[in-house]
Amino acid sequence: MTSTFTAIDHAHMAHALRLAERGLFTTQPNPRVGCVIAHGEQVVGTGFHQRAGEPHAEVFALREAADQARGATAYVTLEPCAHHGRTPPCADALIAAGVARVVIAAEDPFPQVAGRGIGKLRDAGIAVETGLLRERARELNIGFFSRIERGRPWVRVKLAMSLDGRTALADGESKWITGEAARADVQRWRARSSAILTGSGTVLADDPRLNVRLPGGEAFTPPLRVVLDRQLRTPAGSHVLDGTAPTLLLHGEQAGANDGRFHKVELAVVAEQGDALDLSAVLGVLAHRHCSEVHVEAGPTLCGALFAAGLVDELLIYVAPLLLGDAARPLLQLPLLTDMAARWKLQAIDRRIVGDDLRLLMRSAA
Amino acid sequence: MTSTFTAIDHAHMAHALRLAERGLFTTQPNPRVGCVIAHGEQVVGTGFHQRAGEPHAEVFALREAADQARGATAYVTLEPCAHHGRTPPCADALIAAGVARVVIAAEDPFPQVAGRGIGKLRDAGIAVETGLLRERARELNIGFFSRIERGRPWVRVKLAMSLDGRTALADGESKWITGEAARADVQRWRARSSAILTGSGTVLADDPRLNVRLPGGEAFTPPLRVVLDRQLRTPAGSHVLDGTAPTLLLHGEQAGANDGRFHKVELAVVAEQGDALDLSAVLGVLAHRHCSEVHVEAGPTLCGALFAAGLVDELLIYVAPLLLGDAARPLLQLPLLTDMAARWKLQAIDRRIVGDDLRLLMRSAA
Repeated sequence: MTSTFTAIDHAHMAHALRLAERGLFTTQPNPRVGCVIAHGEQVVGTGFHQRAGEPHAEVFALREAADQARGATAYVTLEPCAHHGRTPPCADALIAAGVARVVIAAEDPFPQVAGRGIGKLRDAGIAVETGLLRERARELNIGFFSRIERGRPWVRVKLAMSLDGRTALADGESKWITGEAARADVQRWRARSSAILTGSGTVLADDPRLNVRLPGGEAFTPPLRVVLDRQLRTPAGSHVLDGTAPTLLLHGEQAGANDGRFHKVELAVVAEQGDALDLSAVLGVLAHRHCSEVHVEAGPTLCGALFAAGLVDELLIYVAPLLLGDAARPLLQLPLLTDMAARWKLQAIDRRIVGDDLRLLMRSAA
Repeated sequence: MTSTFTAIDHAHMAHALRLAERGLFTTQPNPRVGCVIAHGEQVVGTGFHQRAGEPHAEVFALREAADQARGATAYVTLEPCAHHGRTPPCADALIAAGVARVVIAAEDPFPQVAGRGIGKLRDAGIAVETGLLRERARELNIGFFSRIERGRPWVRVKLAMSLDGRTALADGESKWITGEAARADVQRWRARSSAILTGSGTVLADDPRLNVRLPGGEAFTPPLRVVLDRQLRTPAGSHVLDGTAPTLLLHGEQAGANDGRFHKVELAVVAEQGDALDLSAVLGVLAHRHCSEVHVEAGPTLCGALFAAGLVDELLIYVAPLLLGDAARPLLQLPLLTDMAARWKLQAIDRRIVGDDLRLLMRSAA
């Protein structure tokens, strides 16, 4: 069935999407969802999901609409739930409130929900239409859809490079490649992620904090810090071991014993492949832990290995207006290409200026 | 004296600049100049310089204006000439036509002209104002100003690279990094240049034509092809030796004898510095030959050497949405950087999308 949506429908759904975005940093592991309840142009209730365990978007909107929900249209960015989770089913709440029509952007991919919310609503005599601004709704929860539909998180690799594609000097110095605005921007990408992934090489070289620093006390759910540390080389005193954010060290079976460095973090064994951890297995572990978007900040070895294995969904690249020369460190270590036809083709999803730097969001062109 | 220009003045000068741009590919070695003659808003004559030896912009505009030039304002993008060159002085023509006021964007830097045209006009009782849209007028003739004011051409290095800063595979294969739109765009940059410079390494590896291919028979003055070929290694049968465009091979004193390969091209000796030609001397030779904009298409060695010597004024970089990996060829060979503070800082003058590629025009941030 092809639905025809009006300009008013579009405006309300766009509004619901903007509301949903307000949960960008806080809903993990849940999806970001927004809801608008309206009679024609007139909005009578709005809501968005803020935090797991707290009410869903529809509940907030229905509360605000109160009696005016009767006969109204509800615009929801994701199919209302039909199952009892930590909160009662939203489909039931919409039926009970007497809404006449429900417009849904994206169908829920979750097995317990898919189609059931829509079915429940229709069984109750409510007109249900789907697909309005679906792509935007899916983009907003790209990691959630990836995790449910593909069984693995959406992997976004952040890179900061000079114009000649270099991430650090030959000796590893990499401070101040990009500017302050770019570094602040990175914090927002970290904040929306379920996990921040790095390798033990980066921990040894840079001792990163891998936490989220937002100005003005903006709320966020702290992402899980994940270190791929096959041999448990992370030294005592490293920032990632300080217990200031949930942290997971993934290591191989033969790793050295837990000698007390790790009492504030969690350790888990992952299968190995050659002399590295099996990266597909790593992503499986993270999906199992409900990680939707995984933000990678690592060196050219790990980033290159993820890319070469086809496990990178998105490259978030900051290009600084400077040159570091051919002796400096490369962007990605990739297998030797001997045929131009085999080059890795990408497409730009977004290009913008951040301070003095250029920010490119690239995905596979396939 | 600070002049106050009206919106009408701005509009006419912007018009004159657009006219001047029509000579972008053809005026070499002369500057691009446009002229508008107007009474208030009403335009009575327009002209631009098309080709060296042909009339200047003012002459065309005065011809079109005829009697209506009397009492009018003439907008000229460059100070009218006061000397007898291949054509009579334009200042005299403006005086003879009886214009009341002359507005000039940029003062002429040429020793025989500087200030004299303005002086002549003022002596004749004409109101002269300067500096309206001066920067745009100077940009349009950036190579001309560079050559006259600095004694060296404006050097623009064109580079095409992958997202990870690579210009070719490890084996040198470099076809099809950028797309068709970018390659067509490059032809326009070649067309506006006085010379196209490369090194013998590129000739040996790629046998480039280094000519200009514009669609639809658009007119251009063929740029001088310049090959830095210290040892005269350019092989017989190379495209640059085919005589289809003026060509200059610059070589060292100890180069092998002219053995007949070079009867369609010109040879000249340039001083050496170490085991390469002296790049400052090369630019001196080109300035002496009235080259204003020099377009460099060469490998990472020559481009890197020009850059490291501080002789690159502009980088024209096409970034293709693909990855070639760390084994592929670097963008520029530059001296080893050991201190991040010494990184080469640039600023973006222009960023735009050309087909699927990104085009960056960068200059030194100093």
